[in-house]
Amino acid sequence: MLDRSPTPATSCEVTVHRWRDGDVERVADQVAEELPVALVFNGVPHVVMLATPANLEDLAVGFTLSESIVDSPKEIVSVEAATRDDGTLEVRIGITASKLSELLRRQRNLTGRTGCGLCGAQTVEDAIRQPTPVQGGVNVDARSLHDALRDLRDRQEINLRTGSVHAAAWVLPESGIKLVREDVGRHNALDKVIGAVIRAGGDFKYGYFVVTSRASYEMVQKAVTVGGTLLAAVSAPTAFAIRMAETAGLTLIGFAREHQHVVYAHPSRLICTSTI
Amino acid sequence: MLDRSPTPATSCEVTVHRWRDGDVERVADQVAEELPVALVFNGVPHVVMLATPANLEDLAVGFTLSESIVDSPKEIVSVEAATRDDGTLEVRIGITASKLSELLRRQRNLTGRTGCGLCGAQTVEDAIRQPTPVQGGVNVDARSLHDALRDLRDRQEINLRTGSVHAAAWVLPESGIKLVREDVGRHNALDKVIGAVIRAGGDFKYGYFVVTSRASYEMVQKAVTVGGTLLAAVSAPTAFAIRMAETAGLTLIGFAREHQHVVYAHPSRLICTSTI
Repeated sequence: MLDRSPTPATSCEVTVHRWRDGDVERVADQVAEELPVALVFNGVPHVVMLATPANLEDLAVGFTLSESIVDSPKEIVSVEAATRDDGTLEVRIGITASKLSELLRRQRNLTGRTGCGLCGAQTVEDAIRQPTPVQGGVNVDARSLHDALRDLRDRQEINLRTGSVHAAAWVLPESGIKLVREDVGRHNALDKVIGAVIRAGGDFKYGYFVVTSRASYEMVQKAVTVGGTLLAAVSAPTAFAIRMAETAGLTLIGFAREHQHVVYAHPSRLICTSTI
Repeated sequence: MLDRSPTPATSCEVTVHRWRDGDVERVADQVAEELPVALVFNGVPHVVMLATPANLEDLAVGFTLSESIVDSPKEIVSVEAATRDDGTLEVRIGITASKLSELLRRQRNLTGRTGCGLCGAQTVEDAIRQPTPVQGGVNVDARSLHDALRDLRDRQEINLRTGSVHAAAWVLPESGIKLVREDVGRHNALDKVIGAVIRAGGDFKYGYFVVTSRASYEMVQKAVTVGGTLLAAVSAPTAFAIRMAETAGLTLIGFAREHQHVVYAHPSRLICTSTI
């Protein structure tokens, strides 16, 4: 049933018509792959996501933690990515019996085929989870942040080929980028880097997240749920993300570039702003 | 219970720390709002989405069609956006009794609280809907497309203030942009413009969609489901989106800018490429 073959390529070549200033040519182009990935907990299918087929075990571990399916990495007992005979990607996650019971109870309570958005949640109360606020955490010099942003560009391997995938990085203030993960979906990129940190034995209080996308409320929720204290996004945050970051104690940075950034919540962890 | 007050503002002002080349200043910044919106069909809660609080009736109508909850606009009998006492936004959609039965049957068959991704779908078969292929449709001169892209910039009202929301436009080849809708979510922006076209009595075979985002498979699926024949995205498509566009007969354009674009599937509807 399951084939242990390596995951499919993260990009593929297509022949396209490129039109530029009136000229048209047929050229080869690299495009990012996007494939359905099923997450299966203790044999029970839970969700299908569209994702870039790389680092799927990181994705599964990150998702399991950031979506509060378990509260601690110790409650994840196994993880294994595989390709089914029909080519479908599947990640099998083993969680403790008590967490599985909780998950099944939640599944029974909330029924619903939904096409988009907050994913199975039918009422606003189901949809918006307020994570436990964070305290303490990192102190980051603005220079460290800007160096990380400069270095990240060259470490976005899939994006350098395709120009169309998001990245999330895990950065230590004193030593720079430790891990980078990429995905066509920004939530997936963040989940992948969260999973990678956990699997590498890292601790979320000693570093911070940089993401190449916008910061929506879900990005803030995921970062705080795993204990992150600083999230820097290359693009803008939403108003809801800012309110959640305020309440949750997260330092939220937007428009983070090589020489500039904007701090939207809890500026005290940034050394440049605490001296005003 | 329901208050008919106008929807909340689409952006709000926050005070931020802006850091630029070593200087830090406290300034006012406009950020895009993002709020939970509940879609309720004939009194039954179906899904909660995070969306920009504008044109919510368009969003609801577009979503109902593009997600195949109904097959024809005639099966939508009413739509009304309202704000609950607790500030929550709700759109109440009335659909025909037979379509409601189908929706409830789907809800019973598919249970699942999911945190992200393909939204309630637990198996790949549930997740990937192959829409009925389209034929015929528009013929578009490259100049018309490029003009639309230039004009769109100035018509992204919320984005001009906040720099962080997507737009989707409905364009007629002979007369340019007819409708623009904006949202923090790219699927929502497309659903809003689909709903707006339907509510204005438009016909999807006479025009085309332009979106300021990437083209994922879900954007292709939505466009084809309502009968659209050409989708142009400012950013890249994914490989899965290209495959679905090929199968579904959709002309898919990426990296669409003022003077250039790349055609990824079914180039014959573009006059510039059919002459090679």
